[in-house]
Amino acid sequence: MKNFDFHAPTNTLFGKDQIQQLPKVLNQYGKTVLLAYGGGSIKRSGLYDKIYELIGEETTIVELSGIEPNPRLDTVIKGVKLCKEHQVDVILAVGGGSTIDCSKAVAAGVFHEGNPWDFITDKAVTIEKALPIVTILTIAATGSEMNGGAVITNEETKEKLGFHSRLVIPKVSILDPTYTFSVPTYQTMAGSADIFSHLIENYFNQTPDTMVQDGIAEGLMRTVLYYTPTALKEPTNYEARANLMWASSLALNGLTGNGKFGVWSCHPMEHELSAYYDITHGIGLAILTPRWMEHVLNDDTVERFALYGHRVFDLEVNDDLYITAKEAIKLTYDTFVDWGVPMTLPEVGIDESLLEEMAEQAVHHSNISTKAYVPLSVEDVLKIYTNSLVPMIF
Amino acid sequence: MKNFDFHAPTNTLFGKDQIQQLPKVLNQYGKTVLLAYGGGSIKRSGLYDKIYELIGEETTIVELSGIEPNPRLDTVIKGVKLCKEHQVDVILAVGGGSTIDCSKAVAAGVFHEGNPWDFITDKAVTIEKALPIVTILTIAATGSEMNGGAVITNEETKEKLGFHSRLVIPKVSILDPTYTFSVPTYQTMAGSADIFSHLIENYFNQTPDTMVQDGIAEGLMRTVLYYTPTALKEPTNYEARANLMWASSLALNGLTGNGKFGVWSCHPMEHELSAYYDITHGIGLAILTPRWMEHVLNDDTVERFALYGHRVFDLEVNDDLYITAKEAIKLTYDTFVDWGVPMTLPEVGIDESLLEEMAEQAVHHSNISTKAYVPLSVEDVLKIYTNSLVPMIF
Repeated sequence: MKNFDFHAPTNTLFGKDQIQQLPKVLNQYGKTVLLAYGGGSIKRSGLYDKIYELIGEETTIVELSGIEPNPRLDTVIKGVKLCKEHQVDVILAVGGGSTIDCSKAVAAGVFHEGNPWDFITDKAVTIEKALPIVTILTIAATGSEMNGGAVITNEETKEKLGFHSRLVIPKVSILDPTYTFSVPTYQTMAGSADIFSHLIENYFNQTPDTMVQDGIAEGLMRTVLYYTPTALKEPTNYEARANLMWASSLALNGLTGNGKFGVWSCHPMEHELSAYYDITHGIGLAILTPRWMEHVLNDDTVERFALYGHRVFDLEVNDDLYITAKEAIKLTYDTFVDWGVPMTLPEVGIDESLLEEMAEQAVHHSNISTKAYVPLSVEDVLKIYTNSLVPMIF
Repeated sequence: MKNFDFHAPTNTLFGKDQIQQLPKVLNQYGKTVLLAYGGGSIKRSGLYDKIYELIGEETTIVELSGIEPNPRLDTVIKGVKLCKEHQVDVILAVGGGSTIDCSKAVAAGVFHEGNPWDFITDKAVTIEKALPIVTILTIAATGSEMNGGAVITNEETKEKLGFHSRLVIPKVSILDPTYTFSVPTYQTMAGSADIFSHLIENYFNQTPDTMVQDGIAEGLMRTVLYYTPTALKEPTNYEARANLMWASSLALNGLTGNGKFGVWSCHPMEHELSAYYDITHGIGLAILTPRWMEHVLNDDTVERFALYGHRVFDLEVNDDLYITAKEAIKLTYDTFVDWGVPMTLPEVGIDESLLEEMAEQAVHHSNISTKAYVPLSVEDVLKIYTNSLVPMIF
């Protein structure tokens, strides 16, 4: 285990009707609120009206709406402008990862002279201060509700890049599983794939002796596998939605990744897909993950894949570890197929034309060629992309 | 899953030499520090000198030493007096659960008019303010380094009682596994038994659909089982000590217990043993746990015990769940025996003379007779105590 610095200070108010605490929560920070959200789903669900009912009278609400599924830099800049104009005290991010990520960039952007893209692209530019963020989560997916990470897309440069700061970790997150009842099938499975991928990325790592982190990841993976089919079949099943929601927060708040070195593999590859084609992040991850697994399976990694099969899919470990490992990879693929995920790139509108360019960018924008679980060259990434053009055969 | 409010804001600085950050950490809170510790072990290990070397020049250090293994109310009162006299800004608790628990009571006691026993015994007396606490952990056991709970013993009334407040959650905890290298065998196994018991207490619970919490608990239980024998055989094995240390914090910071109703079973029973006989808490828990398991195994609980056997001990689940459940209970007992725990009450100096009185007190001081996993009457507790007089036979 490597040294680490763990800090997940978000106060999570979990469960039905926790929104009743919203006035008290926001009051700690001030009376002018930036209400950040995406499209009309929070209006259709009644959440938007509920917020106004609870805080509308005593609070000045400024709205930043229309935040994109892959939030854009120009929306961040618009939010920063609003916060400065109206002297906003606190950001209330209502939505999923996109809305929360955008809010984080706004929160930090308010105190940054110049373009927020600076602190996203330049590690030398440090975030010194940020507005407090409170979130109301409406989809279980990114875990952004309990960490300091955010990913922003620059449409001009076609770049989709992340930044991280402890100052933008949400102060309070209201996690009411009933708000995810109306999440459509496609987004539910994309969300589950995203949670699962965060766990996979942290689990397949070369650092030895991280049994605490791995045991937590295994438990959360089993949870996602167990409850996703129920959530897809019965969207209003509270227990399924609750377990998926809580798993989303814990999958990426440091618990499963702290104390490990190296960088992730599938996320950098997927970020190019959604930067170029604006596809749903979780779907891109689901498509890439089993191909990546197949590509990196070798004598060094087979033991971990067999353990994954044993702990997560309850497989008996065969004397020939490759048998268990391959079965685990097949089950991973089959899981996504069973959920209904479109499991090839053409099904999400991606053909072979830009694969090479994206492979180059994936390696250029990350350290996967040197620090991934199994280092991936441009050729490796291209192979994984190419293998994603057609269904897998086992 | 029940509604819950999760908040584990402790910033954990984990790993070798993290103590170098101590000056910066303490500086946030002020220049007068109450250094709280137990006996001479931190002097023998060099930790005491290291602290003075790092902060001795710039900081005024007031010492509260001699904190007992089961910290006493009069020591708390002494600490409060010191803090008031010297206008202490921050408490640096160096040690294990006893030192940290005592520090929590001192931290809150400073701002409480009257005897600290008030807020420990009377739920109506709320803690309004507390001094900030920074900890340097020297034994993996109670998890006190990352939560707001504390247990204090009143020698006069023979009561050992807990209190809880978010205001006394440590701000920063330095977790350097090398500080646990010198923990003696007896305390190492007692610590592991304590961690294991926290997980057991949360795991055996009637609330349905808590797979997230249970998956985490299962992973942490496997970690304790896997690394404790190594830590006992090779006390300076960093990886074993690291995993046990991190497991201790996560076992009791809310992750495995939040979202569940009811109260614990073995802790209330053990608290009487250590209140009356001053035995080591973890050892008392190890003795009681398998007897409690045997006592509460029935048609309602057998499925959970079988799952426990499957997930934690890798048992195949038999069609007759009782077979798996009983094997799991046996393995739990055998585990403690293998560690070297004295597994009967007489071995720790407890005979039958006060069992009835303690059984009455255990029920009197807790809600185990109504809200435990399987409610336990005075007769039940007495049975479990009595069964603990002799070795278990399977």
